[in-house]
Amino acid sequence: MSIGAFYQTGDFKGEKHVPVIHAPEVVKKGEKIEVKVLIGEEIPHPNTLEHHISWIKLYFRPEGAKFPIELGTYDFNAHGESELFTEPCVISVFSTTQPGTLYATSYCNIHGLWENAIDIKVE
Amino acid sequence: MSIGAFYQTGDFKGEKHVPVIHAPEVVKKGEKIEVKVLIGEEIPHPNTLEHHISWIKLYFRPEGAKFPIELGTYDFNAHGESELFTEPCVISVFSTTQPGTLYATSYCNIHGLWENAIDIKVE
Amino acid sequence: MSIGAFYQTGDFKGEKHVPVIHAPEVVKKGEKIEVKVLIGEEIPHPNTLEHHISWIKLYFRPEGAKFPIELGTYDFNAHGESELFTEPCVISVFSTTQPGTLYATSYCNIHGLWENAIDIKVE
Amino acid sequence: MSIGAFYQTGDFKGEKHVPVIHAPEVVKKGEKIEVKVLIGEEIPHPNTLEHHISWIKLYFRPEGAKFPIELGTYDFNAHGESELFTEPCVISVFSTTQPGTLYATSYCNIHGLWENAIDIKVE
Ligand SMILES: [Fe+3]
Ligand SMILES: [Fe+3]
Ligand SMILES: [Fe+3]
Ligand SMILES: [Fe+3]
Repeated sequence: MSIGAFYQTGDFKGEKHVPVIHAPEVVKKGEKIEVKVLIGEEIPHPNTLEHHISWIKLYFRPEGAKFPIELGTYDFNAHGESELFTEPCVISVFSTTQPGTLYATSYCNIHGLWENAIDIKVE
Repeated sequence: MSIGAFYQTGDFKGEKHVPVIHAPEVVKKGEKIEVKVLIGEEIPHPNTLEHHISWIKLYFRPEGAKFPIELGTYDFNAHGESELFTEPCVISVFSTTQPGTLYATSYCNIHGLWENAIDIKVE
Repeated sequence: MSIGAFYQTGDFKGEKHVPVIHAPEVVKKGEKIEVKVLIGEEIPHPNTLEHHISWIKLYFRPEGAKFPIELGTYDFNAHGESELFTEPCVISVFSTTQPGTLYATSYCNIHGLWENAIDIKVE
Repeated sequence: MSIGAFYQTGDFKGEKHVPVIHAPEVVKKGEKIEVKVLIGEEIPHPNTLEHHISWIKLYFRPEGAKFPIELGTYDFNAHGESELFTEPCVISVFSTTQPGTLYATSYCNIHGLWENAIDIKVE
């Protein structure tokens, strides 16, 4: 079975692990856009040493392209050390000349891999 | 379409992107084992700024478990800077008390996501 | 010579590599705060395969503490692949119960390690 | 105070956090070499959710160069999840055309940043 079969998804309003993506639907060709991705917007996910979101990783696949391109990886590393807690929330600023799909993937150290996606048009 | 659908695989003897996994078939419960994972053992993959293997990421899924657990991520970051080149080759040392599947995934900045897997028994 | 000796700094208004930190000066104990960190706010840094900012890494050191705690690491991975470019700009959302220093460090694949820091008070 | 001031070091025979570097003293110009870096060779470091080595990061600075170049980053991510434990031990395979210094840095989630270094000659 492919590791790909283990990416889980769902409606983020009912499932606290699903990455929530705030992105413009239409962007200007080659201009910088800001996207916000977070876990637990509606239902907070635990943030403890025992159970937390470790990372969010973003890919963009231009329409019709065979391969997704990685935009960035965001590791959340404080989960109680010295009473510091990093929340699973990021922005990514990027540009594209082609329309396509933005994939947000994430990893919970207990509940594994999750994903969400959104289409972005270019004008 | 799930990001999971973009993991590619194949026979590493013919396809230079497939991670090659050298691991013991049987390990002792809870004892440290060493696994070697590399790209391009038979057919070298390019290693240039324009085209290279960015990372290898390893997961282990205990038999029957619903979620894969991430063992480690290995980023290869020099691709010609100051004439330095990091090769896509790592070892991981880990222990498991349960048999399961070791997944090796990797990413080429041009050709996307790849994977391979191997079953490990525990005695 | 310690690797620590290679962290460079300066005024971000004149030196394009220095991380710019936008953070509140005073925060409420244990409440989530949002910090924005970017490279090149005044003078843009190149973003090409040959020359780009690879990552930003954030640490927080509580006042008087011996060790800095890592908050997060943010890898910027698209530098022209499929005409996609990830910009060196992030937010981090975190909480602290203690005042201290937020360190932003970054790495340019040509010009090495850079840093900036800001003090945060807790009320 | 620079974040660089927080890198700690010592003799790995007495201090369990110091990265141990196994590398050849002399290498052939541009040929691949294998280096092994680990924490806790003589005195094991704890490996629990509460206290563990999170990562090892390697840099190489060519003799006389102003900037260190990052070779790779190695994240150790299982610390008890599903009874899996990743140990802080890696190999890096790389090539250099110039002699210089290999820096191994690491991070303990409780005891902060550590480093060690070794000179490598080129023949
Ligand atoms: Fe969870
Ligand atoms: Fe390739
Ligand atoms: Fe630069
Ligand atoms: Fe420690």
